[in-house]
Amino acid sequence: MTLAAGDMAGQKVQRQTGVALWRQIADRIRTSINHGDFDEAGMVPPETALALQFGVNRHTIRSALAALAQEGIVRAVQGRGTLIERKERLSFPISRRTRFSQGIGDQVRETRSVLLATSEEPASTELARQLKIKIGTRLVRLETLGQADHRPVSRATSWFPADRFGAIAEIYRTTGSITKAFRELGVPDYVRVVTEITATHADEGDLADLQLSPGAIVLVAQALNADLDNIPVQYSISRFAADRVRFTVEN
Amino acid sequence: MTLAAGDMAGQKVQRQTGVALWRQIADRIRTSINHGDFDEAGMVPPETALALQFGVNRHTIRSALAALAQEGIVRAVQGRGTLIERKERLSFPISRRTRFSQGIGDQVRETRSVLLATSEEPASTELARQLKIKIGTRLVRLETLGQADHRPVSRATSWFPADRFGAIAEIYRTTGSITKAFRELGVPDYVRVVTEITATHADEGDLADLQLSPGAIVLVAQALNADLDNIPVQYSISRFAADRVRFTVEN
Repeated sequence: MTLAAGDMAGQKVQRQTGVALWRQIADRIRTSINHGDFDEAGMVPPETALALQFGVNRHTIRSALAALAQEGIVRAVQGRGTLIERKERLSFPISRRTRFSQGIGDQVRETRSVLLATSEEPASTELARQLKIKIGTRLVRLETLGQADHRPVSRATSWFPADRFGAIAEIYRTTGSITKAFRELGVPDYVRVVTEITATHADEGDLADLQLSPGAIVLVAQALNADLDNIPVQYSISRFAADRVRFTVEN
Repeated sequence: MTLAAGDMAGQKVQRQTGVALWRQIADRIRTSINHGDFDEAGMVPPETALALQFGVNRHTIRSALAALAQEGIVRAVQGRGTLIERKERLSFPISRRTRFSQGIGDQVRETRSVLLATSEEPASTELARQLKIKIGTRLVRLETLGQADHRPVSRATSWFPADRFGAIAEIYRTTGSITKAFRELGVPDYVRVVTEITATHADEGDLADLQLSPGAIVLVAQALNADLDNIPVQYSISRFAADRVRFTVEN
């Protein structure tokens, strides 16, 4: 066994696994692109070469490349082949100062946060435990989408105690910033207390909102933020397109 | 869109996505188990009920449950149905003090680390950059497997500068502990400097070593450890079975 970088040809695809061959091949090609295996050429090998390498037909290779094109990783150019469009994942720092736009701001030209939906609801057992409030306490729920250079990066559901933050949806809708909304509502600063990270397959909402190809993976970050008196102000579940980000924890 | 917990019935499975129906259903059932949806009964609903709910035949449900049984999450009991065996993910803290066995030690009865293979190799460009050494410097490579209560949790490849840690494989083989090996080699303590977290589909080595069902997801942690003089001592790439762990970052 080896976990070292790169030898795409050495990793066989497997039939009858519950994951289609084209998806397995798309994963392998994506990994090779991220490892820089094709940096010199700037493009992936021709379809015929890939078909030979993976032992599949060209139709399967085309499906794999189409999925990567949908993710914005490659682009087919008539008469030239398949260009590599974007290589690196965005690095998203997890720290006491974690904020969406600041975290990735220097890696992209533009970040944007969009309010998709909002509602009020009573705190469930789990939310009450996280936010250290009574079950049934009124919460504001925000459904938001984080974009970098016009590409969706993450979708999040956040909950805020409604007594303090009843107006947060309205402010967020115009500012696109939780930080600014908190400030207007009397919380000049806040910190990330804890983040739990898991990974799962993309669900229907992920496919739609994050523009993922089916079968993709999402990194899930469940996070608690508190004000400087250590009182919980926000609990959120954020789902990131796994092939677009890495989380970075510096100690 | 909603990211709130639980309504398994509300999440439709999708055909023609590159991920088999049985795998999608296995994911949904696992999520429901983790959310505690079946806590009262202690078992998953009957196959006929699940088939109806997901709109698939019983054969597909059986494949999903077989995959979950292989992961140790459920167990079929003749004449009774499908019992829930294990619910929670192991929580694996990422911090300045991260060590495999100490991290999850209080959640399980026994942790164990096994040396699978070792070799010496020259530092690649990437490893040289990470370990702040010259390209071509001799490195010791260890391939290890981390187990909790006899179940594999993670597999890792680690690299150590050979001039300081030439004997590390030998010591690790008998102690099963990087910490003890470092101590014997003149590094009384070490700290985690940075961890990068991504997620990807399991490869062949993951399937074999981590006993995963095909199509499963692995969380990948690339980590740098340094001694107390801030000199890099270890770079590692660890692959965790995503459905068995969560990473926890406390700030």
